[in-house]
Amino acid sequence: MANLVSRRQFSIEWAHCDPAGIVFNSRFFEFFDWGTWTLFEAALGVRPAELAAAGGNESIPIAEVGAPFLVPLVEVDAEFLAAVRFGDAVELTSQVREFRRSSFEVEHRLSAGGQLAVIGRETRVFAVRDRADPSILKSLPIPSRVIKQFEVQPTRK
Amino acid sequence: MANLVSRRQFSIEWAHCDPAGIVFNSRFFEFFDWGTWTLFEAALGVRPAELAAAGGNESIPIAEVGAPFLVPLVEVDAEFLAAVRFGDAVELTSQVREFRRSSFEVEHRLSAGGQLAVIGRETRVFAVRDRADPSILKSLPIPSRVIKQFEVQPTRK
Amino acid sequence: MANLVSRRQFSIEWAHCDPAGIVFNSRFFEFFDWGTWTLFEAALGVRPAELAAAGGNESIPIAEVGAPFLVPLVEVDAEFLAAVRFGDAVELTSQVREFRRSSFEVEHRLSAGGQLAVIGRETRVFAVRDRADPSILKSLPIPSRVIKQFEVQPTRK
Amino acid sequence: MANLVSRRQFSIEWAHCDPAGIVFNSRFFEFFDWGTWTLFEAALGVRPAELAAAGGNESIPIAEVGAPFLVPLVEVDAEFLAAVRFGDAVELTSQVREFRRSSFEVEHRLSAGGQLAVIGRETRVFAVRDRADPSILKSLPIPSRVIKQFEVQPTRK
Repeated sequence: MANLVSRRQFSIEWAHCDPAGIVFNSRFFEFFDWGTWTLFEAALGVRPAELAAAGGNESIPIAEVGAPFLVPLVEVDAEFLAAVRFGDAVELTSQVREFRRSSFEVEHRLSAGGQLAVIGRETRVFAVRDRADPSILKSLPIPSRVIKQFEVQPTRK
Repeated sequence: MANLVSRRQFSIEWAHCDPAGIVFNSRFFEFFDWGTWTLFEAALGVRPAELAAAGGNESIPIAEVGAPFLVPLVEVDAEFLAAVRFGDAVELTSQVREFRRSSFEVEHRLSAGGQLAVIGRETRVFAVRDRADPSILKSLPIPSRVIKQFEVQPTRK
Repeated sequence: MANLVSRRQFSIEWAHCDPAGIVFNSRFFEFFDWGTWTLFEAALGVRPAELAAAGGNESIPIAEVGAPFLVPLVEVDAEFLAAVRFGDAVELTSQVREFRRSSFEVEHRLSAGGQLAVIGRETRVFAVRDRADPSILKSLPIPSRVIKQFEVQPTRK
Repeated sequence: MANLVSRRQFSIEWAHCDPAGIVFNSRFFEFFDWGTWTLFEAALGVRPAELAAAGGNESIPIAEVGAPFLVPLVEVDAEFLAAVRFGDAVELTSQVREFRRSSFEVEHRLSAGGQLAVIGRETRVFAVRDRADPSILKSLPIPSRVIKQFEVQPTRK
């Protein structure tokens, strides 16, 4: 598991909750998505909107890819361990669990009041747009330089 | 008021409702937006996705505009007269209330169980993208041919 | 697999879609949830809002349970096989894939333009509220009379 | 205008945006709602979830009301002055614009990159549940002690 972890703290809003007074399940997938963008920002040093717009530039490691890349979602799973309620202070941590050849898995763990409440796992593909037909996405091997950015070096004394 | 009315019947879903068991207000604006797309489809005979993608073609009245058009929202208002609840069978009617020079107002009326529950009013602008810089929208006068499409001719005997 | 299938046809709305022009993944979980409510309505002959409010009454098979029941979601998974776009006409089918002792799995299949685009699997628990403390949910074995309602009898000649 | 202002800073997420790459209008009403909860928390010193659950207790000024109160939305309006995009750092300020006898107006101003982009105005009613039939809401005059909480005293030297 790559050791870079992004964290986000926020409160559960009225609009997130359903008639049972708990977060409606679809909202967690919004949280996961945002967790992944935040993680990529932490790893690659580029703001999500720039990543989405341009896909990369010379100053970031993804230059190696030679083209803007995308990370479309191909599968996502969530386990609900405890109810999360209106007003709960929650923390979401996001971390790449595994890099495979051209796909990777991001694990999201949401805690409410210090208790683990939801675990999410997104499988995403590393892809570029086809030059001839930009509506086609082609997966490609994840560059090692990208993968390295998800490892935090231990601070030496 | 233009006399073409689009109607949509649907049921209120669990996901639409908040901890008070009623539709959370933001959802009504999703309903209004869809009402406007549906109304334009009824008037112009072009599916919403095609309207969004292409903006028009020779076979539809908007050919006169000479360019794909957009109808960005500049103001929206909603009055909540009665609570709408999970499982309610609702009907949404949408109608252009007024065409002004380059803007127009769409009125949406949502009834639940036959009782008027929510009134929405969207003000939208008739606009095209600037040729030199497509990120700029320019409003322009609404073509009379477009306006006429929102009038249903009475059926003669 | 229980053979009762509920079907819902609808169109993809502008509000469902993200900046890539495709349905944002969290929306599918709204669709799945609605699919499950619709399936229960088809099986038990009780409208979703009544099921949520009362949990059952003498006239429906769940009388055997002796108490209103709930079907909280404990896990959900979605596989995205093809992009679903604004304006697409989609069909969602929902079916219980397996009844286990006190949990069951609902499979949702969403097709766009006749092509399977998303598969969802919800694991839900059959539960009642504890009489002493209604905030506590207790799982209990799914009554056979409930399970039978998800089987459609073949029509004999 | 009451001078207490609540502020919230956040980023625009991918899930907030539509195929035009801008925040879909319904999302602003989620932001406004949260702004109002936050403002009430700042004024009354009670967390939103407690306000929703209990409506008040002896230690807060609303004790005078003699019952939990609710602030249902009866009208809301939004003006869109500039597009708000994915990744934008936004600030939402919320402030009571006017207290009337039993209703009040909350003004929300959302800025992106320092530029005012959206103005929202919510009209809410001060209400309690009827003791005989809790499904009925009765409006009542807003207690002066509640109104005073929305005024910040100037700090004297």
